[in-house]
Amino acid sequence: MHTQAEDFRQRRQRLARLYKKPVLIRSGRPAHRNPPQTYPFRASSHFLYFAGWNHPNLAVLLEEGRATLFYDRPSLEEAVWDGPGPDLDELRERYGFDSIRPGAEIPDLEVLDAQAPEDLLEAVVQLRLRHDAAARSQLEQAVDMTVRAHFQAMRATRPERREFQILAALLVSVTQEGGSTSFSPIVTRRGEILHNPHYQGTLQRGDLLLVDFGAENREGWAGDLTRTFPVRTNFTPRQAEIYEVVLKAQKAALRECRPGREYREVHRAACLAMTEGLVQLELLRGHPAELVERGAHALFFPHGSGHLLGLDGHDMEDLGDRAGYAPGRRRSSQFGLNFLRLDRPLEADMAVTVEPGFYWIPELLENQERLAPFRDCLDLKTVEAYREVRGIRLEDDILIEASGARNLSAALPKELQEIEIVVNS
Amino acid sequence: MHTQAEDFRQRRQRLARLYKKPVLIRSGRPAHRNPPQTYPFRASSHFLYFAGWNHPNLAVLLEEGRATLFYDRPSLEEAVWDGPGPDLDELRERYGFDSIRPGAEIPDLEVLDAQAPEDLLEAVVQLRLRHDAAARSQLEQAVDMTVRAHFQAMRATRPERREFQILAALLVSVTQEGGSTSFSPIVTRRGEILHNPHYQGTLQRGDLLLVDFGAENREGWAGDLTRTFPVRTNFTPRQAEIYEVVLKAQKAALRECRPGREYREVHRAACLAMTEGLVQLELLRGHPAELVERGAHALFFPHGSGHLLGLDGHDMEDLGDRAGYAPGRRRSSQFGLNFLRLDRPLEADMAVTVEPGFYWIPELLENQERLAPFRDCLDLKTVEAYREVRGIRLEDDILIEASGARNLSAALPKELQEIEIVVNS
Repeated sequence: MHTQAEDFRQRRQRLARLYKKPVLIRSGRPAHRNPPQTYPFRASSHFLYFAGWNHPNLAVLLEEGRATLFYDRPSLEEAVWDGPGPDLDELRERYGFDSIRPGAEIPDLEVLDAQAPEDLLEAVVQLRLRHDAAARSQLEQAVDMTVRAHFQAMRATRPERREFQILAALLVSVTQEGGSTSFSPIVTRRGEILHNPHYQGTLQRGDLLLVDFGAENREGWAGDLTRTFPVRTNFTPRQAEIYEVVLKAQKAALRECRPGREYREVHRAACLAMTEGLVQLELLRGHPAELVERGAHALFFPHGSGHLLGLDGHDMEDLGDRAGYAPGRRRSSQFGLNFLRLDRPLEADMAVTVEPGFYWIPELLENQERLAPFRDCLDLKTVEAYREVRGIRLEDDILIEASGARNLSAALPKELQEIEIVVNS
Repeated sequence: MHTQAEDFRQRRQRLARLYKKPVLIRSGRPAHRNPPQTYPFRASSHFLYFAGWNHPNLAVLLEEGRATLFYDRPSLEEAVWDGPGPDLDELRERYGFDSIRPGAEIPDLEVLDAQAPEDLLEAVVQLRLRHDAAARSQLEQAVDMTVRAHFQAMRATRPERREFQILAALLVSVTQEGGSTSFSPIVTRRGEILHNPHYQGTLQRGDLLLVDFGAENREGWAGDLTRTFPVRTNFTPRQAEIYEVVLKAQKAALRECRPGREYREVHRAACLAMTEGLVQLELLRGHPAELVERGAHALFFPHGSGHLLGLDGHDMEDLGDRAGYAPGRRRSSQFGLNFLRLDRPLEADMAVTVEPGFYWIPELLENQERLAPFRDCLDLKTVEAYREVRGIRLEDDILIEASGARNLSAALPKELQEIEIVVNS
């Protein structure tokens, strides 16, 4: 079921109620790869939200709930190369455009981007923050597609394979369903490198493989799941201990997901559970709540627990922190908390990720300056013993509902929902 | 076998002999997709040619054959997210850099791009035009990878499949070998749309599927092959007739590929053989050479017969026609010939594509203005009968050698080298 013309019309009408002036949104231009070659085109998410058509060099004017599309039919010369273009009546019918005008008539208005007037941006954030029924359906599709891809990746994982072979399993899964990727996938045996765009590693028995991958469905909606699992098939005892800690942290965070709850509290629940686990394992010493207050957990879990999910993997981050942070709020300066991408109360129909992780990052755990404030609460000998764990992250996609929260990843095959922890004896 | 430090050094020394001043080349920045998400990074081809490392935000200074890389090691903060970065000694050893300096020291020089001094561009074109042994080896790898992907695509093709499913077969093949795509693939049952970036069609028995796909190997070198074949498994009589015409045109063109021959003559051979075939089939009437002179063939074959191949699918077209056209030459104004991308004498170690095609393009064959000059030599009733053929293109990758030419696609499985023409009875 795709988003209907009526769904787009309702979005435009809701925007018109929140913002009275005309709004111009551009779809964008193809990005160059090795020029003149371009990457596959993907329209701006704001354009897709209000106008739907994934096509370059378009603009749409939203005015009092009406939509005018600015689109130049291919010239005869262009049509020889690019085909005749779509039928205008079909375009009107599919996306609910009220009129279609040539590109030369695009009015000289400010466009919707991060420089637009604050009241316009606030209106757009309000709409895109709470997903309407059509958006929720699209998100479900994107997460389902993501789940199936993860399943294929897990099936493909075995010793001696290269990371790019696992990437291939992910790509073929989403491509053969007509989708693509919502962000650059992470497929790595070195999960402690948080942003790792390389896929050259060779999987070894005893490794954990971290897969952070999201499908983008045909209309541009994003899934974003992370699983970390052994390369056939057993955890080492240390890996298993930390895996359980991260899993507990994720469950603790998920329990906080409900309308009215601050996402900061979701993050705090993850940090607290993680810290409790690390105290039990004696990597940390002290009272967990105090350790979290001081930021000691961030030596192992430096990032935030999650972010908004929608048409972007990190939804609306093209607008800076305007969507992630409630009006008037600013990022903390404390290491760890400063990377929290989401600090606003959860509301029904918001979609968020919940993704705690444990990482053995040498740049943190071998850095005397970083360690100095935490000398009293760190057992560095025990910490060292867990170096082999490298990185473990678990990420689910959550839709907040009036009555609580729904885990959109629940369609995961049993193997992926909860990885059976078999420990090497 | 990857390109060795010594290969890069030799390229720099050859450049120094052709151009005496210092040259700065930038690797480029990641292109944004849905911001802040980026596409997978791919360095500029000039950078890859002289410096090899596919990494963003770099610059290399080439001066008297010496190479200084400007690279900022990740700060401690960045290393937490991106890892510690490569070892500098390994970088020096792998790519033959003479020194590595911080980015703040990048000198204020003109960079190598389309705006650079003409004598610099001419020197770079001269180098990249004739592939050294390392480049030839890379091109062979890229074409082999492309061949294997085409083979998987052909195996995956059957009625009721969607075009994106065939795309998936191509992508998985190159990705699991550690490669990617050198340009946006064309996978379509509507081959008459020359640039078709969509994959939504459903394959039907009786369709021809046109696949124009090139792998990019790990070092960035491009393959670029096109095959057109029936969706399981027979041609219609009309399709078979035209397929044989295109195949003859390609073979005629391939026979012209040798050092000293003008590529224009390769193109002319393709046009002439195509026209002879169309005269035999009675779509055209008249003397083939005169028809080609008048440009009548371009109603069915509007594009050029090929282009340079190297680190880009259309090699060096970021520099406009400087590489494709010999100094002092300009594009023709005749329809068809104006799309010829290559007009210079072939030389040993150049790589080119040879890719004639036949297309039933309504914007040409139903356009009275386009047809007017050719009324006397067109049999429109017969032309109409071939509408079902839509589009057929056959493309091989050719390395010019001292003694003639080598078809790099010759590693194609037999099924792809020459598709068995079985006609529906």
